[in-house]
Parts: sequence; C-alpha cells; structure tokens
Amino acid sequence: MNATDRLVLTALLDIPSVSPGDDITTIVQTALDRTNIVLEPGDVIVITHKIVSKAEDRYVDLDEIIPSEYAHRLADEVEKDPRLIEVILSESTEVVRKSRGILVAEHHLGFVVANAGVDSSNIDHIEGHSRVLLLPTDPDKICSEIQKRIQTETGVCVGIIINDSHGRAWRNGTVGLALGSSGIPALLDLRGRPDIFGVDLKTTQVGLADEIAAAASMLMGQGNEMRPVVHVRGLPYPLSEGKASDLLRSKQEDLFR
Amino acid sequence: MNATDRLVLTALLDIPSVSPGDDITTIVQTALDRTNIVLEPGDVIVITHKIVSKAEDRYVDLDEIIPSEYAHRLADEVEKDPRLIEVILSESTEVVRKSRGILVAEHHLGFVVANAGVDSSNIDHIEGHSRVLLLPTDPDKICSEIQKRIQTETGVCVGIIINDSHGRAWRNGTVGLALGSSGIPALLDLRGRPDIFGVDLKTTQVGLADEIAAAASMLMGQGNEMRPVVHVRGLPYPLSEGKASDLLRSKQEDLFR
Repeated sequence: MNATDRLVLTALLDIPSVSPGDDITTIVQTALDRTNIVLEPGDVIVITHKIVSKAEDRYVDLDEIIPSEYAHRLADEVEKDPRLIEVILSESTEVVRKSRGILVAEHHLGFVVANAGVDSSNIDHIEGHSRVLLLPTDPDKICSEIQKRIQTETGVCVGIIINDSHGRAWRNGTVGLALGSSGIPALLDLRGRPDIFGVDLKTTQVGLADEIAAAASMLMGQGNEMRPVVHVRGLPYPLSEGKASDLLRSKQEDLFR
Repeated sequence: MNATDRLVLTALLDIPSVSPGDDITTIVQTALDRTNIVLEPGDVIVITHKIVSKAEDRYVDLDEIIPSEYAHRLADEVEKDPRLIEVILSESTEVVRKSRGILVAEHHLGFVVANAGVDSSNIDHIEGHSRVLLLPTDPDKICSEIQKRIQTETGVCVGIIINDSHGRAWRNGTVGLALGSSGIPALLDLRGRPDIFGVDLKTTQVGLADEIAAAASMLMGQGNEMRPVVHVRGLPYPLSEGKASDLLRSKQEDLFR
C-alpha cells in the first residue's frame, strides 16, 4: 500500500496540565517519546491552541477588568458579562454580528469567530476568580519556532499546526481549523492540475491545514479528554512553505461580513 | 494504546470509474475486499458525492438547456454560461450572494454552496457535449440505504458519510463536509459534559460528520487521484442516530445570509 493511501492520527499520551512558562516544544517531544513515536519527515504535529495560550500566560482575570460604557451597552444587548465583552472588544478589530447570546467578532489576527476566541472552558478558575483565556499571540510564528526547534533537535522536518474549533456560517456545530501553521501547504493550490479526464481544474484551492486541524480535533475532544496534541502521518502532500494566515479571506474579498 | 487514541483513514484501492446505474454498495464492498479491510463495528465509510451522483445519473447536458431571460441576465452579471446558470437556479431555493465569477446559492436540500453544487470537473464530456453533474438526490437517505445493505450483507454496523468540498465564509480554500450521513452523531452534542476542571461545557456542539468528511477529503484529493472512498477506523465516539441534515442551520437562525 502506498504511504499516501493511509493517514494515521495518534493522540499523544499523558500530557500534563500546562502552566504559564511551560515549553510546548519540550512537552510535545516528551509526549512523542512516551507514545513511542519517532518522527519521520513529512509528519505533522497538531497542537490545540489552548495549551499554547496557557504556556503564553494569555489568561485574563475578569475581576481586574473595568468595562467601558460601550461594553456595558453591548453586554446588555447580547446578554453576556460586560467584563467579558470588554476583553472581547480589546481582542477585536470589529463586531461582525451580534444577537442575543451571540457576539461574532473579527479578531485582530483576522479570524471571524465567536467572542473573538476568548474562552472560558477548560480553564482553572483559581480562588474564586473568573479567568478567561485569549488566543495565542501569533500562531503562525509560534508554529514556525516549534518547527525549527524540532528540526534542530531531531534533524527531522515536520509540519506544525495550532488548531482551534470555530463555529461557521450556514452550518451547526464547531469544526477544528488551523489558527497557525508552519511547513504545511496550508492553502493548497490545485489550479491547473488535471482532473481525471485531463481537463484543468479551474478554481480548486483546498484549505488543507484546516482539514488536518479538523481531523486532529476529533481525537482531541472538547471536554475532559486531555489530548491536546495529535501526531499525523501519511499526509498525501509534501511539506512546503505556507502559513495558516493564507487561509484568512480579506474583508474586501469576503461576501459574508 | 486505547483504540480511540488512534484514527486510521485508508483510501480504498482501484475503484473503477462509476457509470449511471452502478451500485455504490457493491463498489464499496468490492473495494474493501481488494484493500484487505474487514469491517468492524464502529467503522465509517466516506464516499465522495461525485460517484453517488454519477451512479444516480445526475448528469445534465448543457446543450439541452434553454436559459430563461433571468438566467441570461444573471449570467451576464456573474460572467458564467447562461445554461449553467439555468441549471443552478433549478437546483436552488435562493441566490445568497453574487459577484463577478461567483454565485452562491441555497441548494433546495439546504446547503449554502457555490453554484448550488453543480459541478463540471471530473466529468466525462462525451462527444463534444458539455455536461455538468448535480448533487445526489437525497444524501442522508442514500447513506441510510447503504448502511442497511452493508449491515444486512456483513452483519456489521458501520457509519456512512457522503462528502463534498465546499467553500466557506471568511476563509480561503474548500474543505470536505458531510452532504449526507447515517449512523454517525453528525452534530455531536457535548453540552452538559464536564471540561477538564469539572465545569459544564456550556455551548459545545461539534460538527463531527464534517470533521470526518474533511479528514477523508485529504486522502481523496480533488484532481485525478481516483480515490473516491475512504475507510475510517478509530472514531472516538460511538455510532448513533443522527444525519448530516442536522448540520444545516436554518435561514431563520443564520446571521450570515
């Protein structure tokens, strides 16, 4: 069987809770060892954004937030905590849609996402304080750094993805997508390749990093599964340049905001 | 290693071109045999919509289409073939967005998708005729029928998905999603389950069938790969009732159309 006929995703075992200052690359490499996986060229490592944000100490203590008047008004409108709204606004360039219980914003990194990605699940609310967690500072850059570290330390070139689960227009349910990536043809351009009858494919660009992220997301789970890192082997495309921010459609080109 | 720590996707081998009247269940079972896969309970089979449409003879010969005046006007506006526009309109309940080169419609099955899913790639354009291919008639029902046939003939309960690749709001690139499914918790409801700190997850519904569809889509490719069926083993959720149409957000609940 050709290697590219089979894609194998493995959740890494026994990854401990991540705290501010922890080194994600070391955590990944230790977990690979523990799971008895020796990296091969072309492998991809998918890391949930949540442990990256925790390592970066992207926590915000809501008790220290003083909401603006606008945040109070918006909070009334969407029926959310005004302190949370203040944090969401500070992470956003624009409110894209709002409705009772729903606030969709454009994060300053370019993602259109509920609550600008500010997250209050799977967070240790210590000593009665309500903490929320922001998205990582620069997901593509963090992926690139992890990729380089792994290449330096093991000699193997792998792809790295930081994923998250976002809601979508038109469809119910969240799906995993790539917040950041390095070494992956994140937006795979098949234009000009032949179809099975030799006719040029006219418009096909594939959100490959998002498909990898979605696949890994199934194994990670959303609740108490504690499987924040997934190893992927058998990607049927070679590694290459490309970053997850290539997947962001600019507002000017987007018919849906 | 726990079975649910590993997800293995395998593209089935040597599937021939599909013609009108072919039996998809037989094609899948023959290909499983050829790939030396013996089905186990909980396995999922993902089938590209294209071979289902071909088996259903969902071809339309554009030379037999007489576009309406409205189709002509719309064709001028979006710079597409008026015969294609006529076919798209006949498949749609509503034009959602239009722009030069772009026509996003709500298919009468409920999908919001470019060109109402009418497809002109990987189609045998015989004898100079321009043919296009419509989406399958009733993807959830077809999945249910395939599932029942496989259960009757092998005694094994598997999940079935028919997938397609659609564009999205906000992000570049298409990703695989579930047009139809049977036996899968397509919209997985995790509300009320605990997070890792024992706090209830408040809003998490996962588009699980879409994540499986996206994962399989990577192995299928979009061009001349001829890998229209993917076998999935190790889904970390039990099979259950549920259908892909549960993933469709109603227009009334959708802030983005």
